[in-house]
Amino acid sequence: MPLKSSDSDRLKKTDQRLIALLSDRISLLAASEQPSLDEQLADVAPLLAQAGIPESVWAGVVNSCYTTLIPKSKTIHVSPRKIAIVGGCGRMGRLFKEQLSLVGNNVSVLEHNDWKYADKLLSQAELVLVSVPIEHTVDVIKRVAKYLAPTTALCDITSIKVQPTQAMLEHHCGPVMGLHPMFGPNIKSFFGQKVVVCPGRNDDSFQWFLDFFKSQGAELVACTPEEHDRMMVIIQATQHFCRFSLGVFLAEAKIDIEQSLTMSTPNYRQEIDIVKRLFSQNPHLSVDIMLATEERCNAISFLADTYSRLAKLVAMKDRDALTQEFENSQSFFEEKINTFLQPLNLIAIQRDFQPQMHTNISI
Amino acid sequence: MPLKSSDSDRLKKTDQRLIALLSDRISLLAASEQPSLDEQLADVAPLLAQAGIPESVWAGVVNSCYTTLIPKSKTIHVSPRKIAIVGGCGRMGRLFKEQLSLVGNNVSVLEHNDWKYADKLLSQAELVLVSVPIEHTVDVIKRVAKYLAPTTALCDITSIKVQPTQAMLEHHCGPVMGLHPMFGPNIKSFFGQKVVVCPGRNDDSFQWFLDFFKSQGAELVACTPEEHDRMMVIIQATQHFCRFSLGVFLAEAKIDIEQSLTMSTPNYRQEIDIVKRLFSQNPHLSVDIMLATEERCNAISFLADTYSRLAKLVAMKDRDALTQEFENSQSFFEEKINTFLQPLNLIAIQRDFQPQMHTNISI
Repeated sequence: MPLKSSDSDRLKKTDQRLIALLSDRISLLAASEQPSLDEQLADVAPLLAQAGIPESVWAGVVNSCYTTLIPKSKTIHVSPRKIAIVGGCGRMGRLFKEQLSLVGNNVSVLEHNDWKYADKLLSQAELVLVSVPIEHTVDVIKRVAKYLAPTTALCDITSIKVQPTQAMLEHHCGPVMGLHPMFGPNIKSFFGQKVVVCPGRNDDSFQWFLDFFKSQGAELVACTPEEHDRMMVIIQATQHFCRFSLGVFLAEAKIDIEQSLTMSTPNYRQEIDIVKRLFSQNPHLSVDIMLATEERCNAISFLADTYSRLAKLVAMKDRDALTQEFENSQSFFEEKINTFLQPLNLIAIQRDFQPQMHTNISI
Repeated sequence: MPLKSSDSDRLKKTDQRLIALLSDRISLLAASEQPSLDEQLADVAPLLAQAGIPESVWAGVVNSCYTTLIPKSKTIHVSPRKIAIVGGCGRMGRLFKEQLSLVGNNVSVLEHNDWKYADKLLSQAELVLVSVPIEHTVDVIKRVAKYLAPTTALCDITSIKVQPTQAMLEHHCGPVMGLHPMFGPNIKSFFGQKVVVCPGRNDDSFQWFLDFFKSQGAELVACTPEEHDRMMVIIQATQHFCRFSLGVFLAEAKIDIEQSLTMSTPNYRQEIDIVKRLFSQNPHLSVDIMLATEERCNAISFLADTYSRLAKLVAMKDRDALTQEFENSQSFFEEKINTFLQPLNLIAIQRDFQPQMHTNISI
């Protein structure tokens, strides 16, 4: 039963009215502070049920409008600050310079050839943000600290937190905080992204900076530097090693990636996207992520040993031993089985947020 | 600037009108055949640009309505067929029984204790679908073939295709086709899913069955059994081995998965979801996927060797060698760099569809 021309006209008219209303909705939200996503969803739940519209359809509308608005609401709320980014010409440094400048801050950059201007650039900054490769972070912190006023807030965005936070506390007597943005330099905005926050000293001095992240739609997760580093061994280092190894394997086996994508599952396509993005980065950054701490190197060895042990069972076609390995791990994941059926979406991620420790910062 | 109460009222009214219109839109689409997603997007492109609404917002609305409608449009177009599913009580078998029954087909099931009814169930079927574990597929095909009329269309949905398709061609003189649904039994509908199609003999007899998949929103990808099996070594077997090994590693290291998720990236969360889903499956299915062919076992060995080699470099903290490995693979992925920046979405997946060979089936 094809669409009759009268139906087709009605669909067109409905779509025109829908688009006009969506435009109104976006304008309304842009003109004032947005209610939270949860509020926007909860308010209309009975109405949706009555109209027979799945909540997912409405969540799609609300989320899309929300995302669209981020750039427009950027100029609200922020009073300009003097900020210096050490390593501000790196890819992450550029991202932070751009995002912080967009809301009206006065952001200057110190690169490795600029130490002669260090006194001028650093001594008057309200916030100094260190954004340099992992292996140089502690040395740069030591050098930067010499130029800082006792009131300057010092933070870093390196992906390890114990050593940098210790170095900042040791060499700077003022406010200190360790940050780890859980995203790469390719993102368009901070919306929906996580930032791990490790309080160091005088957290109050960073409140405006944390509020800036929140106003951009980022989610802050507080924990100790030790908790952070322990978790990143798994979340970052072993994952990175897996994708690095998979990429080397695919390249050596000369797999026709494009052909494989034509018959792929969405999961495989996403895996390939992640691997390709990894290999579009700077090699030194990639190597740093794997070698950053002794714990990371040890975990990678342990993971590779697991691979070898299981691959040997595959080579011997030892069905029973593989089944046994499977069943041993199955019970570990079964305990958590109730939580994983929730689909991956923004709302779920936001609800999962749990501060990991008590601090006096408001996140 | 909080939302003023007049703004708040206007937002509520806008939302009420939006919801009423969405309800109209869904009813209109349900009453007749839907225009394609591309058409629904293209028609309004100028209107969207004029209203300042990103296409992604509209794509969200259109996709959500489309998905909502799938169950309602199921009864359209299909004339009932006599179908027998061998292994119809397995999880994939149940999914196919359910989906094929929903559109009005007469679906019967043959399980391993039912061979005494085989003649009755199989000899009169228009379509016999073999859905049994990989290692039993060829034996079951041989046994099933004895009962079939020369006009019966015989197909299987095993995740290897060379041996089953050969066995079907050899033991059945009628229509033959190898299928590989690129999804697991947990999906709610075939919408947006891929099915690999390996033509065997008398493809015309399967046209109604392929049309059924398409009417449910599935995407068909045609290739030879050899092409399929070569690609699945990478898409399925090595990927499965990676997730299996990662799960064993996480379980043995007793990682606090829930805590790790609080500070995770979306990619890590998704990886954990995939691993958990893998371990919620039957262990034998998992082992079968890895051991199904000699090529799979060899590729897994090669992958594990790559892991070991790179992990040794990590253990030795050999920065130069790791950088060299990275750069060697980088050039392999760089050639393809222009294609990967496209975001992962349904539309992109649909557009990427390229038939891999010429056949007389219409997909």
